[in-house]
Amino acid sequence: MSDNAIIQQNDSRHELRELVSSQLRLLLERNNLEGAKALLLPVQHVDIAEAIEYLPPSMQLIAFRLLSKTEAIEVYEHLDSTVQQSLIEEFKRQEVLDIVDKMSPDDRVRLFDELPASVVSRILEQLSPAERQATNLLLGYEEDTAGRIMTPEYISLKQTLTVEETLDRIRSLAKASELIYYMYVTDASRHLVGIVSLRDLVLHSPSRTLTEIMTQDVVYVKTDMDQEEVAKIIQRYDFLAVPVVDKELRLVGIVTVDDVIDILEQEATEDIYALGAVQSDGDNYFQTNLFTIARRRVTWLFVLLLTNTVTGGIIGAQEKVLEQVTILAAFIPLLTGTGGNIGTQSSTVVIRGLSTNEMNDLGPVRVIFREALAGLLLGLILGVLAGIWAYLLPQTHKNPVVAVSVGISLVGISVLASVSGSALPFLFRSFGLDPALMSAPFITTAVDVLGVLIYFTIARTMLGI
Amino acid sequence: MSDNAIIQQNDSRHELRELVSSQLRLLLERNNLEGAKALLLPVQHVDIAEAIEYLPPSMQLIAFRLLSKTEAIEVYEHLDSTVQQSLIEEFKRQEVLDIVDKMSPDDRVRLFDELPASVVSRILEQLSPAERQATNLLLGYEEDTAGRIMTPEYISLKQTLTVEETLDRIRSLAKASELIYYMYVTDASRHLVGIVSLRDLVLHSPSRTLTEIMTQDVVYVKTDMDQEEVAKIIQRYDFLAVPVVDKELRLVGIVTVDDVIDILEQEATEDIYALGAVQSDGDNYFQTNLFTIARRRVTWLFVLLLTNTVTGGIIGAQEKVLEQVTILAAFIPLLTGTGGNIGTQSSTVVIRGLSTNEMNDLGPVRVIFREALAGLLLGLILGVLAGIWAYLLPQTHKNPVVAVSVGISLVGISVLASVSGSALPFLFRSFGLDPALMSAPFITTAVDVLGVLIYFTIARTMLGI
Repeated sequence: MSDNAIIQQNDSRHELRELVSSQLRLLLERNNLEGAKALLLPVQHVDIAEAIEYLPPSMQLIAFRLLSKTEAIEVYEHLDSTVQQSLIEEFKRQEVLDIVDKMSPDDRVRLFDELPASVVSRILEQLSPAERQATNLLLGYEEDTAGRIMTPEYISLKQTLTVEETLDRIRSLAKASELIYYMYVTDASRHLVGIVSLRDLVLHSPSRTLTEIMTQDVVYVKTDMDQEEVAKIIQRYDFLAVPVVDKELRLVGIVTVDDVIDILEQEATEDIYALGAVQSDGDNYFQTNLFTIARRRVTWLFVLLLTNTVTGGIIGAQEKVLEQVTILAAFIPLLTGTGGNIGTQSSTVVIRGLSTNEMNDLGPVRVIFREALAGLLLGLILGVLAGIWAYLLPQTHKNPVVAVSVGISLVGISVLASVSGSALPFLFRSFGLDPALMSAPFITTAVDVLGVLIYFTIARTMLGI
Repeated sequence: MSDNAIIQQNDSRHELRELVSSQLRLLLERNNLEGAKALLLPVQHVDIAEAIEYLPPSMQLIAFRLLSKTEAIEVYEHLDSTVQQSLIEEFKRQEVLDIVDKMSPDDRVRLFDELPASVVSRILEQLSPAERQATNLLLGYEEDTAGRIMTPEYISLKQTLTVEETLDRIRSLAKASELIYYMYVTDASRHLVGIVSLRDLVLHSPSRTLTEIMTQDVVYVKTDMDQEEVAKIIQRYDFLAVPVVDKELRLVGIVTVDDVIDILEQEATEDIYALGAVQSDGDNYFQTNLFTIARRRVTWLFVLLLTNTVTGGIIGAQEKVLEQVTILAAFIPLLTGTGGNIGTQSSTVVIRGLSTNEMNDLGPVRVIFREALAGLLLGLILGVLAGIWAYLLPQTHKNPVVAVSVGISLVGISVLASVSGSALPFLFRSFGLDPALMSAPFITTAVDVLGVLIYFTIARTMLGI
């Protein structure tokens, strides 16, 4: 076997996955189970999981049963929650024990979060007592907290052990632990007193004790800390894992860096959805039905419908002005559009800044002031341009009323939009709400109302109505 | 020292950082350098870096010089790029050698990316030949590729080594390597043939050779792979690092998981900014001046100003209709607002789906069809409600023309908005452009034009004009 053949061509890794997927289906359709088994042997677990997801539901269980016991657990952990769910409903009691009982408690809890309560309680009954207890412990913590996402599969050691004794212990414990690169040193009452890395063990002489080599300044998190904050701590300190302690500061679990990546992605999606006025709950797009999708969007649309009626009401009250200078109506979309866009820009920058902590330590006053200045600058540029354009338009008959109203309103609306776009996220945060809820459509609509009011007030004043 | 005192209270970690920051300033103001040194001794590097960032610029170099040589390198790597830059300008030649020469090549390259070319070439001259070569190698790769962000500090081993010999080698190499949990096995021509983890070494007997215990199915990336794809691979396989190979498949570096977290955050920020019509370049908000901020936003606003003039033109051409039924103008913001919001919702879901790969393997047809149905459903709900409301409004004098025009337009606009909101990101991607550029404001404006056209066409038809 040549060296190059050993290494899979990574460029073609994606095509390879697709090939595995289609080959697997073909073999199963021909009922060639041995061939399918042989096909999956050298494939990575996460890729097998994906291949199974793409199979028609009727074949998923057949394909899954081709895997060895240890492989089955790993592959099952990587499956999408809906596929996990449909498989579990067809599992025999023994399969539940073979797979769900052997999963990491944190992966199992993630699965249980997606299953109906009745299914969860049925499976819990079938688990071994130790795993049932571990699962119930995690389920006892609130969703999206360190306690809920941690794994209790870590290595804890007494500080009197030597490096050699520790390495012996690791050899026996490695299989039961998710991450063996960090080990946690605890006292008799399970309080965390230090941390030792596998690197430390390898680099120090076998006779040293853990007390001598451990790091005592341990950064830890409490069980009730929000998962986003946990992720930020691992990100900040470049950790591979962070220990989790309970109220009495006893070590109860660890959160690992691979979970953190998924959490950060999920939180970014939530922010993006909130900015786009879509409610999110982390579900897969194609596994939610149309009515759920509509329900998640309609709430915001109702709010906007209501606030828009206010704008409509203001315009409706300007019948006299509009009858006199109908062309004024032509500039309404320009004004509300620009206001909405400038407001969106300011709120986008502020919401992201708060979420990545870039703005957290700076007061809102400086940010709002800067945004107001940026709004003024943009408003002046756009106001002059739009004013000249309005004046030259044939329909306005070089009427200065329209040109001046458009120009001045644009400046006012820009400042207003940038101030509200930057201030409202801070306001939301001070009320303990998610700043991202202060989404673009909300600001757009708020600015619409005020923008139209400014526009017609200026026009009316100039026309003397 | 009691066990509990050893563990820092994490809840108060944030306050602790602030305390360090203010104490440091106080001590420096009183010129108590020994006190400042003692204060920083037990503090984590990243926290020291933050404390220095909050100092007035005149004190930053003084504080930095309190650190030991090894600490100084670590702290410097964590400093914000502008602070790094201002320090480097004041460094003496010896300090450049002590710090910049000792930095990891990947961190150094990240620093050089921010510095003016003249400063970079001056510093490059002062580096030791080996470090200069390593830096030039990385700088030779394009920005945002695996080659540019990788570190050449990895451990590579021959496959004939035993576990015991390997552990001995690691002990001597550990300091020069960023991550010692994975080791890479290469042949005589530096081709990657396998991977061994520190876990494997600890768990296997000392006499086994690497050939026997290594994993041969290595997932690797090429130097020209986009950093976002590299991040996705580490995320997908839950790796701590991924090896990088050149065109001849020779191992040239590794990318580690801590860098991946920062990349994913940066890419999410870029997406969020694009959705909010703000150009981003990863700069710190308060280190960019007002004109740069305005410049980044004004491009989009010009585009919107132009397209809005089209909407304005369409409305301007409806003078006859508007003169006859002035109240029609009052519903323009409602229609354009709703269209913009529904379009934003669809594009948000699709853009995020493409970015997290959730939708990549599904064809655009299914997605657009689903979104069209969702748009129809939402349009029907909103259309009926808004129609009734328009009919009952005193200003409309129960005029069915207005109510029917509003209702039917809302349905049409909603479908149009959801179709364009979901189709345009796919279109952009097929042209090789970033789907996120297909941002909310763009869709809003496009829908505005068509929405107003539909509205007035229906109204005109009903009025027989």
